[in-house]
Amino acid sequence: MEVNPILVVGGGPAGLEAARGAAELGYRALLVEKAATLGGEPIHADYATITPDLEDAGTAMGRMIDAIAGDPLVEIRKETTVVAAAGEPPELTVTLEGPGGREEVTVGAVVVATGFQHFDPGRETQLYGYYEFDDVITLVDAERMLKAGHFIRPSTGEPPKRVCFIQCVGSRDRQIGNVWCSKVCCGIACKEAIEIRQHLPDCQVFIFYIDMRMYGFWEDQLYWRAQEQQKVNFIRGIVTEITRRGDTLVIKGEDTTMGRPVEVAMDVVVLSVGMEPSKGTREMAEIFGLPLESHGFLETVGGPLDTVTTPKPGFFAAGAATGPADLEDSVSMAGAAAMKAAGFLRRQALAAAKSA
Amino acid sequence: MEVNPILVVGGGPAGLEAARGAAELGYRALLVEKAATLGGEPIHADYATITPDLEDAGTAMGRMIDAIAGDPLVEIRKETTVVAAAGEPPELTVTLEGPGGREEVTVGAVVVATGFQHFDPGRETQLYGYYEFDDVITLVDAERMLKAGHFIRPSTGEPPKRVCFIQCVGSRDRQIGNVWCSKVCCGIACKEAIEIRQHLPDCQVFIFYIDMRMYGFWEDQLYWRAQEQQKVNFIRGIVTEITRRGDTLVIKGEDTTMGRPVEVAMDVVVLSVGMEPSKGTREMAEIFGLPLESHGFLETVGGPLDTVTTPKPGFFAAGAATGPADLEDSVSMAGAAAMKAAGFLRRQALAAAKSA
Repeated sequence: MEVNPILVVGGGPAGLEAARGAAELGYRALLVEKAATLGGEPIHADYATITPDLEDAGTAMGRMIDAIAGDPLVEIRKETTVVAAAGEPPELTVTLEGPGGREEVTVGAVVVATGFQHFDPGRETQLYGYYEFDDVITLVDAERMLKAGHFIRPSTGEPPKRVCFIQCVGSRDRQIGNVWCSKVCCGIACKEAIEIRQHLPDCQVFIFYIDMRMYGFWEDQLYWRAQEQQKVNFIRGIVTEITRRGDTLVIKGEDTTMGRPVEVAMDVVVLSVGMEPSKGTREMAEIFGLPLESHGFLETVGGPLDTVTTPKPGFFAAGAATGPADLEDSVSMAGAAAMKAAGFLRRQALAAAKSA
Repeated sequence: MEVNPILVVGGGPAGLEAARGAAELGYRALLVEKAATLGGEPIHADYATITPDLEDAGTAMGRMIDAIAGDPLVEIRKETTVVAAAGEPPELTVTLEGPGGREEVTVGAVVVATGFQHFDPGRETQLYGYYEFDDVITLVDAERMLKAGHFIRPSTGEPPKRVCFIQCVGSRDRQIGNVWCSKVCCGIACKEAIEIRQHLPDCQVFIFYIDMRMYGFWEDQLYWRAQEQQKVNFIRGIVTEITRRGDTLVIKGEDTTMGRPVEVAMDVVVLSVGMEPSKGTREMAEIFGLPLESHGFLETVGGPLDTVTTPKPGFFAAGAATGPADLEDSVSMAGAAAMKAAGFLRRQALAAAKSA
């Protein structure tokens, strides 16, 4: 009996590793990606480098893509989405919609690796003026400029003299409903601050934060490096308003360490936007009938002791589809999901052989 | 040709999941644990509950142990250590030393899951008086009292009225050489603070911290819950000295949010001790010839995109043997390591079949 392939939804770091892992174990993988290119947010959002090792994002993702390219066990469908599903694993019929129209395929198990979307800072935190001021940008906009090799002040095209990051935009915020910490923004802000200082040694860089969540080795790899080698200024404080005075942005808030109001001029303000459940995650939850946990990400069972198994047999999740995740989390979970999906198919095959 | 088993060194959360994963894929696992019982630190250090879901630690670890107990593909050797290794995977000969003496076995691949050890707070940070004052304890001592169901002041046997936690003991500290953040201590302190308040509603609980690293869902699951439901007091500050006045401990330091000196009396002080490379990790690195990264944990290759592959073919690592790790990290990495170890054996078997 032919074993049906493992459907992997999403071609970012988690999806690429899940497909590679399935093939490494001798199982077929069918990788479906809605975009025209693989690589997920690091590619689609034009990241310059990855965190924490500052490897070029294109090189890093290229290595992951190369690891499955040409593998006869991995079939890749780009510009394709899952639009319907019927039956259940290991005989799940999914309807794919791609450049060639609609098609039904039967898959044995599913790994949902649909990632996250960045918080839209113009949506509700209007106090930061993202859509009002050209020089208020996001971590993603900053990444794109770093990738292009010219970090500028958008309103003038000139290199900025003073740049600040504001942490926790769209995270840890009950007012907008995002009560979680997005986990990676502290690390990414430190990384970008280092890169801006390397690129523009005359530019002063400030990071306004609540807690710098530089866990594990990020502490010395990024946080100490930013402070000691690159002289990035960390200010524990709350920014309450961004206004414009002449052609300069004015940041108003409170330095909570010094216990005094802050009013400082900046050329560029970078909003450290957090992670939200992606549209793709919500769509796959709907189509596959997978429950969401209280924050709106995919629910997994087993508390901290099982990060990838969903409540529905044969369905697994990996990466930021399950909640805020860094790259390490995503690839570890993807490896575990590949193992469990293959294990599921193996158990099904053994049961079928036994009953035959 | 018989495929040699995957040797898993260490029977904590990572090792249990790696062995289970290997068996789920149809590979034999040989699980070696130096202690007389499985379950790792949660069992050996008498944890009351696990983080972040406060499940009883014995129940949680029992579930992981049950998942491999009786599996014909998993062989478990307790009170056994690896004392020598020769050759290389997939024909690695390891010498085991256990209750029955020494024995040589041939294994196909290795997953090192030797975990961490808790920082010894009496070792160098004498300013906290861990060996001097009975009422200065660690997160682990607190866990043991919570497990026993009576959280007391050790010097009197009475329930304390005021308890404080001091974060980052043995972490983020260049003076003692531990420059990393141990990642989990903020979450564990919050969890224990919640439990102390549940157990002793009249006891005030304080947490002295630098940054509360409550990433992802820990933010609302533990941090907000501790603040809002349990009225735990979080004080951003530096504790410089613990002394005794009469029969009370006096905590001296600085509240860095209020910018003023702090001198407060406490009945019990809990030191939030961090993670260090375990003796077992260092021994396995030596015996297997595995390099250590700059902090002294096992080195893995591939930066953030491969968390489990060591530089030596056929050797993988999982959990806190590679650096500070929470339970989610450990089981995700273990799943990935099981997949990669099985993938390694599959590639070797295919190559052998081809050359035969």
